Amino acid sequence: MASFDFPVSAVDGAARTGRLITSRGEIRTPAFMPVGTAATVKALYPEQVRAAGADIILGNTYHLMLRPGAERIARLGGLHRFMGWDGPILTDSGGFQVWSLAKLRKMSEQGVEFASHIDGSKHMLTPERSIEIQADLLGADISMQLDECTAFGSDRDEAAKSMELSLRWGKRSKDAFGERESQALFGIVQGSVYEDLRAASAEALVETGYDGYAIGGLAVGEGFETMCAVLDHTTPRLPADRPRYLMGVGKPIDLVESVARGVDMFDCVMPTRSGRHGQAWSDYGPVNLKNARFAEDPEPLDASIDCPASRDYAKAYIHHLVRANEYLGAMLLSWHNVAYYEDLMARMRAAIAEGAFEAFRRDFLSRWEAGPAAGR
Amino acid sequence: MASFDFPVSAVDGAARTGRLITSRGEIRTPAFMPVGTAATVKALYPEQVRAAGADIILGNTYHLMLRPGAERIARLGGLHRFMGWDGPILTDSGGFQVWSLAKLRKMSEQGVEFASHIDGSKHMLTPERSIEIQADLLGADISMQLDECTAFGSDRDEAAKSMELSLRWGKRSKDAFGERESQALFGIVQGSVYEDLRAASAEALVETGYDGYAIGGLAVGEGFETMCAVLDHTTPRLPADRPRYLMGVGKPIDLVESVARGVDMFDCVMPTRSGRHGQAWSDYGPVNLKNARFAEDPEPLDASIDCPASRDYAKAYIHHLVRANEYLGAMLLSWHNVAYYEDLMARMRAAIAEGAFEAFRRDFLSRWEAGPAAGR
Repeated sequence: MASFDFPVSAVDGAARTGRLITSRGEIRTPAFMPVGTAATVKALYPEQVRAAGADIILGNTYHLMLRPGAERIARLGGLHRFMGWDGPILTDSGGFQVWSLAKLRKMSEQGVEFASHIDGSKHMLTPERSIEIQADLLGADISMQLDECTAFGSDRDEAAKSMELSLRWGKRSKDAFGERESQALFGIVQGSVYEDLRAASAEALVETGYDGYAIGGLAVGEGFETMCAVLDHTTPRLPADRPRYLMGVGKPIDLVESVARGVDMFDCVMPTRSGRHGQAWSDYGPVNLKNARFAEDPEPLDASIDCPASRDYAKAYIHHLVRANEYLGAMLLSWHNVAYYEDLMARMRAAIAEGAFEAFRRDFLSRWEAGPAAGR
Repeated sequence: MASFDFPVSAVDGAARTGRLITSRGEIRTPAFMPVGTAATVKALYPEQVRAAGADIILGNTYHLMLRPGAERIARLGGLHRFMGWDGPILTDSGGFQVWSLAKLRKMSEQGVEFASHIDGSKHMLTPERSIEIQADLLGADISMQLDECTAFGSDRDEAAKSMELSLRWGKRSKDAFGERESQALFGIVQGSVYEDLRAASAEALVETGYDGYAIGGLAVGEGFETMCAVLDHTTPRLPADRPRYLMGVGKPIDLVESVARGVDMFDCVMPTRSGRHGQAWSDYGPVNLKNARFAEDPEPLDASIDCPASRDYAKAYIHHLVRANEYLGAMLLSWHNVAYYEDLMARMRAAIAEGAFEAFRRDFLSRWEAGPAAGR
């Protein structure tokens, strides 16, 4: 493995800000990674993603291995070139999406056999194959170990067995990954809601040694309080000098509270998915632009954000576009939402750097609790 | 009426090039107007439309009067401001779309009563109401008289009655329009495929006097040869010092052959509609990017066109986006198609200016007849 440098420039409580330095550029942390599921951050041009403030995006192994196929992307020069993104890319292992999207799946010690949701074709995902796809074929800057996402509601025994399988898959992922010059591999903490299992998972992962540590198995229905509780006892067990990545999270409030607990990286489809469904994110929560109260509202979504979608289009116009089901509605809202998320991360980084994160967090919480109606 | 200046700088056979000078900027002719049906050129940002080379866009009275409503757009500052387009806008009268899209319609001397295709609500479109919507409420730079589109296949008697109704509606449109400082009104030649009716229509319109003259009732199923024949005997009857606008046309070959017959302006949904259906236009015809032969094609759509969508994305990537039904596929193809259409107009303008239009037309025809496979 190649340990990317991760200089932390300020710590404020458990929150910290720094830079993860990859060969394709620096990732300012805490960082939000827009999701480029099928080699595109949905409804955005790559230049817009970058200009919105994203230093890194996420690609989905499951989607890409099925369509257009990992070998095809490799023949076309790798994922960066294929999708026109020259910054760092983190790929997931495919494990979570096999678990949630594939039509049939059969777990074994070896890996997961599944049928594609697109055409029903059969595939096998093992730790070794996942690393081959991510690191060799797609050319990800950061690869994730294959893991099993433990279902929320699993009993302790199921959760323990699942977590132990993920540990074994992690070791096989690391063996398959080997030594690489400018690519990194992250391990994934599992253990569901059980503190001792999370602790055991974290300890074993650190013992094995990864370039970064992800917290998996959250944002699967456990709720905000439980998520915070898991973070409270998990992040302190992860090395301070390595990035911590909370997978698949989340709403703005989740990001703020997770940063407060020492998380450095996030990914979530929420900004782009909400954008395709008429919603604009704000510190006050999600705003539904379809609502009739915006029909003649000349104000922009958020003039304080340096993004044309946030600043230059009236809500009345976006309301019309959403109602008329026009592409441009989804395009503008997705763009605004990514810019909003990146702006939120930038504000958190600045607050941590100034030693003012607790004040930021308190102010944010009061806006969040006031709700969308207060944001007008 | 305010007659926009229309200096013609070069004539080559029947083809001519010039500038229609409006208070919102110059329109280089021959001009192609991308269609912004519902206050958006589908899947494009306004900046992209402009950068692609469009000097003017078209807005649809029918769509806009139903959603968001013409009065609402007026309260929000007019169509230009509403949709973020500060160049000239031409609006159609609504007549054609009432004819083709409304659920129920009842024609009378007074106008057309119809039910919205969106919610079934009842509306009345008269020449006076159409002008009020276009010129007063939307604020169009160029308004079109209300006309009745004569169905292809109408017998001579039906076509004559319909054409005469359009003439009367034209006069009422002109009366309603009155004198305006920086807005223009175009009349519309009807008469179906009947030469004497087209001649009578043109003569009567010129007698009434408009700022420009459109040729309507084509691109409704009559076919390429008939369209050319109608143009052959109609355009010479229209004043040389006023712009001629062929409504709703067409494919690239239609544009070239119409320019050869003295047409100055066009509009068509084809570039954007094709873009949403996986097609890229070229001098060789429409190319279906969904086709498997593009799966690993690293070449761009057309490196000679100064547009990122044409130049910077591999066909293999666009193929993937189209197959995966991603927004970005429709976005890139629509953008390329508008840029291609505008590039074609620019090449025609240059050829006319150089007195080389016949050579251009011959070369174009040989490419067009070679077909898409030859274009690779």
